[in-house]
Amino acid sequence: MSDTAVNVVVSSRVRLARNYFDLPFLNWERPENARLCVERAQAALCGGDESYDLYLMRDLPDVERLKLVEKHLISRDLVERADTGAALIRHDRRVSVMINEEDHLRIQAIGSGLDLEAAANVAFGVEGRLEAVCTFSFDPQLGYLTSCPTNTGTGMRASLMLHLPMLTRYKQMGNVNQSVAKLGLTTRGIYGEGSEALGDLYQVSNQVTLGRTEEEIIEAVTAVGRQLIDMELSLRARCLKEQPLDLRDALMRSYGLLRYALQMDEKEFMLHWSHLRLGAAMGLLPVSLNAVDDLLTVAQDAHARRYAQETSPGEEADAARCDIIRKTLETNV
Amino acid sequence: MSDTAVNVVVSSRVRLARNYFDLPFLNWERPENARLCVERAQAALCGGDESYDLYLMRDLPDVERLKLVEKHLISRDLVERADTGAALIRHDRRVSVMINEEDHLRIQAIGSGLDLEAAANVAFGVEGRLEAVCTFSFDPQLGYLTSCPTNTGTGMRASLMLHLPMLTRYKQMGNVNQSVAKLGLTTRGIYGEGSEALGDLYQVSNQVTLGRTEEEIIEAVTAVGRQLIDMELSLRARCLKEQPLDLRDALMRSYGLLRYALQMDEKEFMLHWSHLRLGAAMGLLPVSLNAVDDLLTVAQDAHARRYAQETSPGEEADAARCDIIRKTLETNV
Repeated sequence: MSDTAVNVVVSSRVRLARNYFDLPFLNWERPENARLCVERAQAALCGGDESYDLYLMRDLPDVERLKLVEKHLISRDLVERADTGAALIRHDRRVSVMINEEDHLRIQAIGSGLDLEAAANVAFGVEGRLEAVCTFSFDPQLGYLTSCPTNTGTGMRASLMLHLPMLTRYKQMGNVNQSVAKLGLTTRGIYGEGSEALGDLYQVSNQVTLGRTEEEIIEAVTAVGRQLIDMELSLRARCLKEQPLDLRDALMRSYGLLRYALQMDEKEFMLHWSHLRLGAAMGLLPVSLNAVDDLLTVAQDAHARRYAQETSPGEEADAARCDIIRKTLETNV
Repeated sequence: MSDTAVNVVVSSRVRLARNYFDLPFLNWERPENARLCVERAQAALCGGDESYDLYLMRDLPDVERLKLVEKHLISRDLVERADTGAALIRHDRRVSVMINEEDHLRIQAIGSGLDLEAAANVAFGVEGRLEAVCTFSFDPQLGYLTSCPTNTGTGMRASLMLHLPMLTRYKQMGNVNQSVAKLGLTTRGIYGEGSEALGDLYQVSNQVTLGRTEEEIIEAVTAVGRQLIDMELSLRARCLKEQPLDLRDALMRSYGLLRYALQMDEKEFMLHWSHLRLGAAMGLLPVSLNAVDDLLTVAQDAHARRYAQETSPGEEADAARCDIIRKTLETNV
């Protein structure tokens, strides 16, 4: 399973919502508290073996903020809190701590493939170091207290980013959403709540944080992930058996367009990206899964705009995106 | 002009309608006369320096007949006259003589680029050899007599196959058709009367065969050809100046699809073929005009079906077409 899971699971992510016991929630109206939160988090993480970079939203150009969003290292909400928002990001980009977002701290650990347990272990390790500086708001009955009551309890969200092109093609996502909801879990688009399922990407995560242990949450999300992987893989096999030429033709066409187009908007890109990942996973296109997954980040709007600024000023994002894609595909044959 | 004409003119073609003086028109109801016509033409052409092959329609498999149509060596009408129809085709495929089509003989000479005079010279040379065996039906007042009165006179049709993607894109073809008609000429699609302008290809030829000398006809068609070449080339320059990225993107996308698609119907192929020829002519795609013009023949349905029969039995024409295209583009970078 672990070999094939990566063909469907793009990443596993665990985030913990935490608040310092001695400060009120919602720091953005209390700049001195916000500053204190940044100092505490910095003190906790920046001295150790692992190296972290501190990003203050107010010091960061727009395009750099959006690049961090596209990397799933910070949320769009943090970007909106430009005055007080900050993030500590580990050099390997597997850990990020958002400061002064909805909660004082949002600790996030991300890994590739299906391994929520590993991500959780990393997140709890970071949490421990953060709490060593100042304890968190915790109620023996309720668990961790959070700014929004929906996060109270474990304060944990465990989520899988799944690539489900065949469940989408065979119109199974309606059923999937219903079944997943019955388990207290939820499916969402690539950028979280209310976002579209661009590129046939779906996030499956726990809805409920109260009344379940962290282990139970991780087990539940993992179990649903495994089921969706099985369903998706068997539909892929079916499609390859029943419509081999149609399938391969569609994948190759997307590959050809990605290699040769000179301008492409994000929406069209995501459409072909989905074919690219499917082709890489099925061994039908000459590109590695890693390269495809990198593209998901580096070919987004903000990355493309930044790339254009650096390499060919005046070039539009839609054209820069194609430069980035072409480069990736040429070096990953 | 001669250098750039080839960027717009795919081919120049002259055909002469001739009938033996001693036989009635319309041979297909008189098999013994039809046989006589074949024998006479064969006697005239098959002994000389140039080598010709005789194709009897009734001996030819369907797919081979259609291949000759796709090569513009015979007409669809000849294919319908399977019992009596025949063709003598010179080895270099620049000359073909249809026997027992609408007239006893239809002599055709074809060359690349803009050179109707050369094509006419070849056609008249062949006509001379054919008439050495038996004279043609000729009236001092009317000229050559033909089965259908619209061909009476010179019996000549001089035609240019023009690639006019920009006149099409800028919606000028309505005006062009009107202007051309006023000069006694006509524009038609790729396979003659009533056919669609697939691939932005148009045939311009004389409508009238009576009351004009052969020289006048050739001059008139050539003059219109030159005008259309100028209009088309200046629109190409304008488009490249005003919308360089849009233009290059469209050409590259078609190139990418042609290189990677695994199945494609004829209609879609002709759409991308037009981009391919435009890109080759403008130096914007890594493929030669010759290779592109060859594709126009070898990637058509009958050629693709025959290719599939020979190389991968059971393969559909739409898939074989892509094999042929890919091979051409890979070896013509």
